[in-house]
Amino acid sequence: MVDETALEARLAALETRVRELEDRDALAQLVASYGPAVDSGEAAAAAALWADDGVFDVVPYFELVGHDGIAGMVDDDGHQSLIHNGCGHVLTAPKIVVDGDRARGWNYAFNIRWDGELDRFWIARLSANEWDFRREGDAWRVVRRTNVNLDGDERPRALLRHSTESSGGMA
Amino acid sequence: MVDETALEARLAALETRVRELEDRDALAQLVASYGPAVDSGEAAAAAALWADDGVFDVVPYFELVGHDGIAGMVDDDGHQSLIHNGCGHVLTAPKIVVDGDRARGWNYAFNIRWDGELDRFWIARLSANEWDFRREGDAWRVVRRTNVNLDGDERPRALLRHSTESSGGMA
Amino acid sequence: MVDETALEARLAALETRVRELEDRDALAQLVASYGPAVDSGEAAAAAALWADDGVFDVVPYFELVGHDGIAGMVDDDGHQSLIHNGCGHVLTAPKIVVDGDRARGWNYAFNIRWDGELDRFWIARLSANEWDFRREGDAWRVVRRTNVNLDGDERPRALLRHSTESSGGMA
Repeated sequence: MVDETALEARLAALETRVRELEDRDALAQLVASYGPAVDSGEAAAAAALWADDGVFDVVPYFELVGHDGIAGMVDDDGHQSLIHNGCGHVLTAPKIVVDGDRARGWNYAFNIRWDGELDRFWIARLSANEWDFRREGDAWRVVRRTNVNLDGDERPRALLRHSTESSGGMA
Repeated sequence: MVDETALEARLAALETRVRELEDRDALAQLVASYGPAVDSGEAAAAAALWADDGVFDVVPYFELVGHDGIAGMVDDDGHQSLIHNGCGHVLTAPKIVVDGDRARGWNYAFNIRWDGELDRFWIARLSANEWDFRREGDAWRVVRRTNVNLDGDERPRALLRHSTESSGGMA
Repeated sequence: MVDETALEARLAALETRVRELEDRDALAQLVASYGPAVDSGEAAAAAALWADDGVFDVVPYFELVGHDGIAGMVDDDGHQSLIHNGCGHVLTAPKIVVDGDRARGWNYAFNIRWDGELDRFWIARLSANEWDFRREGDAWRVVRRTNVNLDGDERPRALLRHSTESSGGMA
C-alpha cells in the first residue's frame, strides 16, 4: 500500500526542482535573445528583455537606462551603421546563480565586424558581462547588465570574480 | 487525507513540463552536435542530425538536400581541405521556440581558420542561422537550417527578426 | 478511482528524468564556470572544478595534474601576464553524454587576446575539447579535460569523433 502523504511530499519536491530548471532555462534564453534582437535592429524586442527600470552599463562608455535608453541605442545611427556594414553581437551561454526571485549570470560577448575589403571578420570588442535578473510575474527580466572590455583592466576581472563566490556576490 | 485525483492532475502537469524541458535540451544538443561532427569529418553523423528530407541552405551559395547532400558536403574536397588545414565550425547556444512537434531556433555560427604562418586563427564567416526542427518519434531532427553571412545584407537581419516574434515566425 | 501504485511508478519515472536534466545542467554549468574563474585569476575556484586527481591535458604542451597543478597554471607568470594584458578564455556550450555517475562532453575553447595598438582582439588558439566528468556526492567534477589546437592535425579530429559515437567513447 502506497502512502499518499509521502507521495504528495515527493511531488511537491519535484515541483520545486522543475521550477528551478525552468528558471535556469528561461534565464539562459533571455541572454540568447539579446544578439538576434539587436543584430536585426528590433529595438522594442531588445528593450523588452530588461525591466522597465533596467540598466545596461557599458563601462566606461555609457549607461543606458530603461526601455527608452536601450531602444534608443538600437535605433541610434552608430548601431544602425554597424549592422548595415555587417556586425554580430555574439554572446556565450552564461553561468547562472538563482536565489528565489533574483538571479545573476556571467558570460562573454563578442562585437564582431565584417571587413569587405579583407573578406573576413574582426573582433572589435570582447567583454566580460555580469547580469542581474529579477522575476516579474511569469517572466524574468534584466535589472542590470554590466559589460566591460577584456583589455587588461582590473574591472572585468573584478566582475568575473563574483561568479566564483557561492552567492554570486548577491547581498 | 490527500486527494488522489488532485495528485494525478499535478503529476500530469509536471510530466508535460518535464517533457518540454527535455525537448528544449534535446534541441540545444542537436545544435551543439553539428560542429564536432563536421570538424571531425564524420559525414554520416552530420547528416543524421537532419530529417531524411532536411535542407541546409547556405544563402546565397548552395542548398544541400537530404542526407546525401549534407554528407556529400562533408566528404567534399573543399570541406576536407578546410579541416586538414585547421578549421572550427563554432556554433553558439540557440534561442529556441517549441510548438508541439515543431520548433525553431536562432544562433550564430563561426567558420574559423588556422593561419600557420601568422600563428593565429581568423574568422572567415560569421553567419546568422535559423533552424526548423521536427519531432520524429523520440528524436528531433533538423528540417531546414538557413545560414546567411552577417555582411551587412538585409537577409540575416530578416532571419534573426523572426526570433523576436512570439511564434518564431512559424505558421 | 486513481491507482496509487501507478501514481508512484509515474512519480519515480519523473524523478529519474528530472535528475537527468539536473545532471545535464550541472555539467554545462561546470564548463561555463571555467572561463570566468581563470580570466579573473581565481586559481582555487578554477582548480575546484576538477576532481582532486583531475587532469588538464593541453596537447602537446603540458599536462596539469590535481588541484595544485591547475591552480599553479592560473598563478603562473604566463597566465598572469595574459590576463593583465587582456585575454578571454571563451568556451562554447558542450555536447554532453551522461552514463550514470560518469559523463563526457565536447566543445570549443577560444584563447583571445587584446592588441591595444591595433585596438582589436585576435584569436591565439581555437581548441577542440573533450571532458570526462565524474559524480562526487552531490557535485560533478572534471576528471580529465583534453584540449588540442584545431591546426589541421589529426588529434583534434580524433577527439571530436568520439562525440559522434552513441557511448561518447566511454568504455
